[in-house]
Amino acid sequence: MGELKLENLGIQIFDLKQFSTANGDVMHALKQSETQGFNFSEIYFSFINNGSVKAWKRHREMTLNLIVPIGKIRFVFQNNKAIHKEKFATIELSKDNYKRVMVPSDIWFGFKGLEEENMLVNIASHEHDPGEVEIADHNAFNYIW
Amino acid sequence: MGELKLENLGIQIFDLKQFSTANGDVMHALKQSETQGFNFSEIYFSFINNGSVKAWKRHREMTLNLIVPIGKIRFVFQNNKAIHKEKFATIELSKDNYKRVMVPSDIWFGFKGLEEENMLVNIASHEHDPGEVEIADHNAFNYIW
Repeated sequence: MGELKLENLGIQIFDLKQFSTANGDVMHALKQSETQGFNFSEIYFSFINNGSVKAWKRHREMTLNLIVPIGKIRFVFQNNKAIHKEKFATIELSKDNYKRVMVPSDIWFGFKGLEEENMLVNIASHEHDPGEVEIADHNAFNYIW
Repeated sequence: MGELKLENLGIQIFDLKQFSTANGDVMHALKQSETQGFNFSEIYFSFINNGSVKAWKRHREMTLNLIVPIGKIRFVFQNNKAIHKEKFATIELSKDNYKRVMVPSDIWFGFKGLEEENMLVNIASHEHDPGEVEIADHNAFNYIW
């Protein structure tokens, strides 16, 4: 189980701003002017229980933009090409590491909840279409969660 | 302090889907195909502490799409026209009343956190621009929070 850099998979990381106020924080997610031509077509939230894993999926068309405003989530990516076989790129997102992670299509990914309550937002380039998602078993890759 | 219906202010309510899974729920927010021509330009999260109020604001250009995936938030709207003076329209959003509330420009609004942790998502038609936001004092309107 070697390690791979996110950039080797074409994954980009963008800093996001947070503003503290006495009544509660404001946290940025995405502005159209920052997307370098990416158009967002669907937004959804995915909760993941503490210690639970959702894996694996690969989108054939969809670019993902992953943001974690609640809790802490570890994301694991694999591109299933022979040269990278059994190698993984990982990042943990949270308020303390508050980023937008832009994942191109054709990347296998999964994620694990690391705190009591964990929520990701995905701002996606395509609307959900079961025909463009490939799903593999939790144990399809040799990653130790 | 009379009551006003949301539709009197041109505010529209849309049902949203939630899917339960053993590892954590998936909750829809917005699909481009459901927006009836509305284009989203900025997405941000706003946390509001339990019992705290953020009020009042009015956007001159921005259409808001408000969604509450965490906690429970009461939204209060006022259009500041003489005919509606001192009348308010309200809605409480939460997982149990999981909706997208689309608010046109030119509506005064504020909100209050009703649970321990409360977060709204705003999917906005315009990027943040201080020049198009009008801010009024918490006590500018006679609403009893």
